[in-house]
Amino acid sequence: MKEPVTELCAHSLTGMNYRDKDLVNDLIGEATFTEVMFLQIMGRKARPVDIKIVDAVLVTLMEHGLTPSAIASRLIYMSAPENLQGAVASGLLAVGSQFVGTMENCSILLDEIIASADQQEAALTIATRYKNQKKPLPGFGHHLHKPDDPRSLKLLDLADSEPTLERHYIDALKLLSRAVDQVYARHITINATGAVASLLGAIGVPSRLMRGFAVISRAAGLVSHIAEEQNIPSGRFIWDTIDQAIPYTKRDTGNG
Amino acid sequence: MKEPVTELCAHSLTGMNYRDKDLVNDLIGEATFTEVMFLQIMGRKARPVDIKIVDAVLVTLMEHGLTPSAIASRLIYMSAPENLQGAVASGLLAVGSQFVGTMENCSILLDEIIASADQQEAALTIATRYKNQKKPLPGFGHHLHKPDDPRSLKLLDLADSEPTLERHYIDALKLLSRAVDQVYARHITINATGAVASLLGAIGVPSRLMRGFAVISRAAGLVSHIAEEQNIPSGRFIWDTIDQAIPYTKRDTGNG
Amino acid sequence: MKEPVTELCAHSLTGMNYRDKDLVNDLIGEATFTEVMFLQIMGRKARPVDIKIVDAVLVTLMEHGLTPSAIASRLIYMSAPENLQGAVASGLLAVGSQFVGTMENCSILLDEIIASADQQEAALTIATRYKNQKKPLPGFGHHLHKPDDPRSLKLLDLADSEPTLERHYIDALKLLSRAVDQVYARHITINATGAVASLLGAIGVPSRLMRGFAVISRAAGLVSHIAEEQNIPSGRFIWDTIDQAIPYTKRDTGNG
Amino acid sequence: MKEPVTELCAHSLTGMNYRDKDLVNDLIGEATFTEVMFLQIMGRKARPVDIKIVDAVLVTLMEHGLTPSAIASRLIYMSAPENLQGAVASGLLAVGSQFVGTMENCSILLDEIIASADQQEAALTIATRYKNQKKPLPGFGHHLHKPDDPRSLKLLDLADSEPTLERHYIDALKLLSRAVDQVYARHITINATGAVASLLGAIGVPSRLMRGFAVISRAAGLVSHIAEEQNIPSGRFIWDTIDQAIPYTKRDTGNG
Repeated sequence: MKEPVTELCAHSLTGMNYRDKDLVNDLIGEATFTEVMFLQIMGRKARPVDIKIVDAVLVTLMEHGLTPSAIASRLIYMSAPENLQGAVASGLLAVGSQFVGTMENCSILLDEIIASADQQEAALTIATRYKNQKKPLPGFGHHLHKPDDPRSLKLLDLADSEPTLERHYIDALKLLSRAVDQVYARHITINATGAVASLLGAIGVPSRLMRGFAVISRAAGLVSHIAEEQNIPSGRFIWDTIDQAIPYTKRDTGNG
Repeated sequence: MKEPVTELCAHSLTGMNYRDKDLVNDLIGEATFTEVMFLQIMGRKARPVDIKIVDAVLVTLMEHGLTPSAIASRLIYMSAPENLQGAVASGLLAVGSQFVGTMENCSILLDEIIASADQQEAALTIATRYKNQKKPLPGFGHHLHKPDDPRSLKLLDLADSEPTLERHYIDALKLLSRAVDQVYARHITINATGAVASLLGAIGVPSRLMRGFAVISRAAGLVSHIAEEQNIPSGRFIWDTIDQAIPYTKRDTGNG
Repeated sequence: MKEPVTELCAHSLTGMNYRDKDLVNDLIGEATFTEVMFLQIMGRKARPVDIKIVDAVLVTLMEHGLTPSAIASRLIYMSAPENLQGAVASGLLAVGSQFVGTMENCSILLDEIIASADQQEAALTIATRYKNQKKPLPGFGHHLHKPDDPRSLKLLDLADSEPTLERHYIDALKLLSRAVDQVYARHITINATGAVASLLGAIGVPSRLMRGFAVISRAAGLVSHIAEEQNIPSGRFIWDTIDQAIPYTKRDTGNG
Repeated sequence: MKEPVTELCAHSLTGMNYRDKDLVNDLIGEATFTEVMFLQIMGRKARPVDIKIVDAVLVTLMEHGLTPSAIASRLIYMSAPENLQGAVASGLLAVGSQFVGTMENCSILLDEIIASADQQEAALTIATRYKNQKKPLPGFGHHLHKPDDPRSLKLLDLADSEPTLERHYIDALKLLSRAVDQVYARHITINATGAVASLLGAIGVPSRLMRGFAVISRAAGLVSHIAEEQNIPSGRFIWDTIDQAIPYTKRDTGNG
């Protein structure tokens, strides 16, 4: 087997490197968390536009109130307060296929459009395929925000105001959006995960890694929920509320 | 039971709030990830000095090479690549008592010193107590970095260069450091978790919440490891190396 | 460093060993799950009394309705159904200090009594210490079951009916129970975690490993909850119920 | 929304029910862990053949030496020994698509065969499809065990010796096995996850729930690894070994 190497970190008696930077002299106090995170994840120094996009994405995905993720973290924190990291880990496990995972599925569709000789044709084909299969189209639709998700409009405006940003992913998303409206014969909003997919694609994040940014952002959101739980405990209230709201029903289990 | 409330987030048909800020108009594209994280966790708008300290702390704790945390994340990612969040969650569970937890234990000692009428006396008492019990003193000592951990020096220099930073925690740590050198009759370095404890204390982070910043920072570090694993797979190599390095030994289990 | 070995498993081209047993010839179809689990964890072949005790303990700890642990697992399953193991892992993280952890803390008290020259004196000292510090005594008290937790009575009856069972831990628990009633001047029930601690102690499980049996048992309980969630989904209902029950309150975050 | 109910557990002042059984009178000391687990997960009282099959499956999947799962648990235990449940949770997150997940994918193929009018034709079609796509066929093949995985032979013998066991899944697997040998023009072994899929299918476990049994079994296996880690620590050795085996390589990250 080929022996692996790591480019992420070197530590020695006199100091540490993060990639090719000296941690103490180049990074601590000199670079922001977003800049160093970008350097480590993407393997290249961030341009100002990269930071603008990553910050906007991380801010957008951080918080959405008392979601499954936040409820789980609060309950686990109540049960094991000596173990804050377990409470965060528990909530992070919700960053799965049903909500955040649509981001990478949308990105895969954008990859498909970009790789096509006739991009408009590809967008129409995708929209038609999902409509015929009656499956939700990743990156599109929102049960509350109609006609448009205000977060998506803001993220796309932000992208449009950045002249140095590569356009392929943004343009592919807009093309897909027009195809969707045409095929479904009504306007369906680009949702936040759709907009995020195109912005992260534009700065070079591959589809399979996108979920990582949601995980980092949500980790910060869940620490906020734990901080609030320390001051305004809700765990016991959640437990009692649900235990009372879901009644026991007896059903015969037979005699084998 | 008193019914809990949340101050973190409101969502409605037309938009979302993070605390008292409008997400779309006030935060996306307007504030950095560190700024919004601070707002959400601490419940107050960050001052420039808060951002300086939090960024420095998050950068310091992000990465330390192939640690237990990183090895676990890489192995879990190999086993369930469809589930990136599980790989990160797995590694975050290492943010426990043995390494990062020393941060909050050091902070509790600083709380004890600050609350004392005679702070110098308190520092000497603490140092003597740990020396007599032959227990490692949280925030002090490093098996590699002697005489001093360069990260700690940099972090404390940074704190000293911020005139608006509250001084109680920084001063308490320095007092404890002098007491340690006196009681142990040799110089023992303040390590990175000790310096981090005093800096986070100085901006108002309570001891019991400090570990949260390590979790956020490490989440970003672990996403870097997964990004590298996608390009330079190491999981199978780690498995084979350890399986061969730890031999099976047969021992009689008896007959009950 | 001394190089570690493993006694748990050997695998080769022609088969596999679990400790000194051949997996295919000695265990599959020949031994129960509880027997093999005991062999692997404890390193000795189980006697009938070991199996009786372990089965009783695992059955007792498996299920307690819609607890924090079960609610977390159901919410994570809804969010990432492709990732059943993540849902179980999430709920297992609740097996912490506040509920199950009392088991090992009770066991540590029993260790203390057993090691004393005057056991009755030791039991009275412990009870007095907790009463004076107004701290909950691990293994004692239940907010619902008065005067006695029926699970504890059953578990202790079971222990008493096993003539080959070592008595030190059972006797120490009963001694502590009498001391508690005397010191508090009223009857306080031995609860399920107290009874479990004495039974596991009696078959040689060390305090620091006891929580492991709760984890195994609860893993089975959480798989039941996921099975039910597949047929009677509750995740969205839990989310909506809690999101509505915990209102947003706006508080001024200042201007930095 | 339809309000959910639970059939798993009721608790009251005087006792507790697991489904329609009284915990204290019917289960503790009266039923084994496997019996109660089956009752709770499957919603029916287990027949002797159900217990035989479930025990055989749980024993087979419990242990496989120093796997990614076991290595992760040991490393997390070293980092946070106060938090045994986190170490188990960490390792369980490895029960994903790459190893254990093949069980449910094999089961889905068996469902496909059973639902076909011409089962032999269906089996040949499946084998041909996988061969043409050069994808690994779930439930078949093993890099070590040739010509046959001894665990599979034992599990299928066990099934064949149970006259009351429903035959559809077992027969479908054997049909698929013959089709595989014919289409690939050589013998490819049924592996352990293939045999497990057919046995669990035969007692009525749906494909989407099968992974749950692997999780329960592996939880017990990981507790064994933690018990061994308490007596023969390997965590620091694993860390040092891997840190030395994977060297740092410096690569230029550019100037943005």
